[in-house]
Amino acid sequence: MPYQPPVREFAFLLREVLGLERYANLPAFADASIDTVEQVLEEAGRFAAEVLSPLNRVGDREGCRWSADFSVATPTGFKAAYDAYVEAGWPGLGAEAEFGGQALPGVVGVAVKEMECAANMAFAMYPGLSRGAYAAISHGGSDEQKQLYLPKLASGEWAGTMNLTEPHCGTDLGLLRTKAVPQADGSYRISGQKIWISAGEHDLTDNIVHLVLARIEGAPAGTKGISLFIVPKFLPDATGAPGARNSVKCLGLEEKMGIHGNATCVIAHEEAIGWLVGEENRGLPLMFVMMNEARIGVAVQGVALADAAYQAAIEFARERLQGRSLSGPKNPDGPADPIIVHPDVRRMLMDAKAILEAGRAFLLWTALHGDLGEASPDAAVAERGRDYMALMTPVLKAFLTDRGFLIASDAMQVHGGSGFTEHFPVSQFLRDSRIAMIYEGTNGVQALDLVGRKLAADGGRALKGFFDEVDAYVAAGPGGESQKPFVEGLAKAKADLQEATLWLMRNAMSDPEVAGAASTDYLHLMGLTGLAYMWAQMASAAQGKIDAGETDPFYGAKLTTGRYFLARVLPETAMRLAKVKAGAQPVMALPAELF
Amino acid sequence: MPYQPPVREFAFLLREVLGLERYANLPAFADASIDTVEQVLEEAGRFAAEVLSPLNRVGDREGCRWSADFSVATPTGFKAAYDAYVEAGWPGLGAEAEFGGQALPGVVGVAVKEMECAANMAFAMYPGLSRGAYAAISHGGSDEQKQLYLPKLASGEWAGTMNLTEPHCGTDLGLLRTKAVPQADGSYRISGQKIWISAGEHDLTDNIVHLVLARIEGAPAGTKGISLFIVPKFLPDATGAPGARNSVKCLGLEEKMGIHGNATCVIAHEEAIGWLVGEENRGLPLMFVMMNEARIGVAVQGVALADAAYQAAIEFARERLQGRSLSGPKNPDGPADPIIVHPDVRRMLMDAKAILEAGRAFLLWTALHGDLGEASPDAAVAERGRDYMALMTPVLKAFLTDRGFLIASDAMQVHGGSGFTEHFPVSQFLRDSRIAMIYEGTNGVQALDLVGRKLAADGGRALKGFFDEVDAYVAAGPGGESQKPFVEGLAKAKADLQEATLWLMRNAMSDPEVAGAASTDYLHLMGLTGLAYMWAQMASAAQGKIDAGETDPFYGAKLTTGRYFLARVLPETAMRLAKVKAGAQPVMALPAELF
Repeated sequence: MPYQPPVREFAFLLREVLGLERYANLPAFADASIDTVEQVLEEAGRFAAEVLSPLNRVGDREGCRWSADFSVATPTGFKAAYDAYVEAGWPGLGAEAEFGGQALPGVVGVAVKEMECAANMAFAMYPGLSRGAYAAISHGGSDEQKQLYLPKLASGEWAGTMNLTEPHCGTDLGLLRTKAVPQADGSYRISGQKIWISAGEHDLTDNIVHLVLARIEGAPAGTKGISLFIVPKFLPDATGAPGARNSVKCLGLEEKMGIHGNATCVIAHEEAIGWLVGEENRGLPLMFVMMNEARIGVAVQGVALADAAYQAAIEFARERLQGRSLSGPKNPDGPADPIIVHPDVRRMLMDAKAILEAGRAFLLWTALHGDLGEASPDAAVAERGRDYMALMTPVLKAFLTDRGFLIASDAMQVHGGSGFTEHFPVSQFLRDSRIAMIYEGTNGVQALDLVGRKLAADGGRALKGFFDEVDAYVAAGPGGESQKPFVEGLAKAKADLQEATLWLMRNAMSDPEVAGAASTDYLHLMGLTGLAYMWAQMASAAQGKIDAGETDPFYGAKLTTGRYFLARVLPETAMRLAKVKAGAQPVMALPAELF
Repeated sequence: MPYQPPVREFAFLLREVLGLERYANLPAFADASIDTVEQVLEEAGRFAAEVLSPLNRVGDREGCRWSADFSVATPTGFKAAYDAYVEAGWPGLGAEAEFGGQALPGVVGVAVKEMECAANMAFAMYPGLSRGAYAAISHGGSDEQKQLYLPKLASGEWAGTMNLTEPHCGTDLGLLRTKAVPQADGSYRISGQKIWISAGEHDLTDNIVHLVLARIEGAPAGTKGISLFIVPKFLPDATGAPGARNSVKCLGLEEKMGIHGNATCVIAHEEAIGWLVGEENRGLPLMFVMMNEARIGVAVQGVALADAAYQAAIEFARERLQGRSLSGPKNPDGPADPIIVHPDVRRMLMDAKAILEAGRAFLLWTALHGDLGEASPDAAVAERGRDYMALMTPVLKAFLTDRGFLIASDAMQVHGGSGFTEHFPVSQFLRDSRIAMIYEGTNGVQALDLVGRKLAADGGRALKGFFDEVDAYVAAGPGGESQKPFVEGLAKAKADLQEATLWLMRNAMSDPEVAGAASTDYLHLMGLTGLAYMWAQMASAAQGKIDAGETDPFYGAKLTTGRYFLARVLPETAMRLAKVKAGAQPVMALPAELF
């Protein structure tokens, strides 16, 4: 069975849960009527299923090939698919109209990206990286840089990358060594080696625009001396066309556990010509523009791979005949029942469904707030939008990728021995999904970002806003008696999260390691609370439809899945709270040499 | 850093926790004085580290090669290593003396096997499968069969396999089709296709003894019509030497996510000559002799791969410099601190250490009970030994492999981006460890075995015995005040397990799906309780040493790790209990077509 794009799910969320049409009056949403958006998603789903999905296994098996002339060939079919992708205008979905984009809200981009990643994550990373480069130049570039690069990135003619990591310097960017020497003409010469550069070299586009972190000669040590540069593979000539080859080259590819179809490059800058983006020594904020874009993109990958793996597991569980239902044969004329009758198989499928459907909602909810943060004329709405986007970015990135990997693993488990063989697609989903927990800041780094920066930002305004919103929802008790379990479940999760927050506030001051020791469990607690809030809203929307006489079983399934979430996923919040409150001492007590 | 055999850990467990010397008076332990055992483990550790470990990566990269003459070549170096393994006498470690074995207790075999698997799981599976074949023939074979096959298996000259699975028939052996036609000479002709046969064909031994499940013509349908056969690759001649080639052949190898160095074969029996083992239609009990042996072996793999991955993570965390400790620089002269200073990195390392050290203890504790079940002259001790072995086999298999995979994943996470590349060994550990959750009965099948059969066997005697033992331990409160947290933690875990058990007893009668829906969470709850019991005993032993003036920091580290377990692992029991008590309804409510 090919990939089934979850367009129906998106439509439910955008139309019936998030109420996208409420924002139709905003200029930024002018071209995003719900009907238009649904058409876009239908098209994107078709492209993902028909063009990208069939190449997923090809990409995994062939991988990318590096040649001694420093070129990299993508897997068979990727170039043609990319051309079709450009032809259809997908690269510019969220780009500004003045640079040739369609300027659709970010929430639409998230939905489209999910389908691309579910169908072919390694492929989707190529345009995904370009979007980060676009964002950095759009935020920090000069008008000239914008005019030169943004139309090419929006059209997909050129691709982008992020050149951050160096062999000795990953999370700790203060250790960065790549240097930039100013030239008389205002350009810089960039020298240094970068590693793990996704989509760092390939044959999909006429040019590749590297966004490179480097240290200008004489800059301060640490992260305060880092600047951001544009280093194009081919130097644009006077007409803006790719001209002379720049001395930036791919020295080789990493051999990896997954995402074989995406080129993970060692990139050498050997006095490469580059141009400063924004101000000297102010590269880090711009890097975070790219990084936050990328982190939401990785969160999307978590949901996407979970859905791909879940779909594969469902198909297998419906077809594989083995054993009989404990409540009597369900396929009496066959030699055995399909394994979907077995409670422990269903447990895994329901876990996946309950988490991924709410995870998808949580992503769209946050992305919509991000859009409002940029577009709402109501200052309070805009502020809350930006607050939520900042607060939830690390939560979504880490929580959804941790869960995505576990869902992919459960999907493999549903397959039994078949799942471990490469005859079935689930091994690739599991292997591909694993990187999402690591790149663009490991999930541990996300957790530190959450507890170390995001909670305290602006006096804790973002989290307080979230608590207030949830409290108001609970107090309103929407949906009456039938929704009570959802409202109570949400209230319980929020209470656990609030208790964990208060505990952190009381204890983290006296011991700086308390927050670090609690960070991952705190993040998961917030993720679960977010899902509980989404389930409450989805259940309310579904119940509303049913009460109004809607007979589509889709709505009943939503309620059933939501009730599973309450009964069998949400008990985890208490455990997370207990682990948070265990404090730093147990974690830090063992001397390093005694491990 | 090469693999570090945990001989010190084994010595602590066998000598100071399990008190192996208490059994020195039993004939079966006559040659297993603690000093002898420690020497054996030292030797086994050396062999694993020096011979097997260097071949692990080779096996992963090369895999096995199938040829059109139906032969299979193992990776470079495997044959020489196997010859050395035979030369050193390792295949016969647990085999009976009359067949050339060393007749050491099973608990020693478990420890040896852990080191073999940690060093090279794909290699260790070859002799591992032979041990299962040995056990089946030893339990069910005729004297003639024993005389012919057991010495060859004990010496390692010949290898063994289990031929169970067919394409349409995995867990549900009642669907088995391979047929056996009786011949006038008392032999049978076996025809059918078997899949996923680990070590099914290779170049390590002169002969391969397949133990094959098949259905004798006219046998009853379902599992009551299954018999077990010996089908050797080469038919033994009159002198017992390998003679004519039997018509059993390997049609190909599976391409898999991991354990590339082990040949996973499609095996065709084309009127192959075979001999019945035991009685007609009584193959299943003998299959379970092999299977239970194999399940303990797979549980060992869970711990082994966890340790291998943990060791790799420790090494990386000590060497990788990134960021500064939140409590002030720990490596002030370096550019950054080693990442082992960061609380979230330590959280993952401590989780691994706390679970794998107690998991190892739980395995040895159970294996020792298995030995007493066979060897103790005290009928009550022997009965309890057999009870515990039966009860804990599914728990150990599923719990330790689930946890082993998560530990391997955390170990990858400690590595950051490096871990996802194949430059570091942790990707292989993660990929190899994943199969252990699947084969020899998926972990869901283990959970069903536990709740559906093992709990109720003999009127629940085994579990009641375990509860009584834990209650007595708690009541005795060994170690006084310093041990109180361990005793209380154990009491709390056991109370949760007991509550889950009572809940199951009350609710499973009215709805057959209740036990299935609860099974995996119940199993994990029992696993956690087992670990809590082990930590109580380990802490008590360590505290005893410290109180007696012992200054080896090993003992303090045990207490610190145990306290981590109490504070940060054990809170999970309440969540498992809540999930058990959620019942079957949420799991089963969604119609299959609405997934």
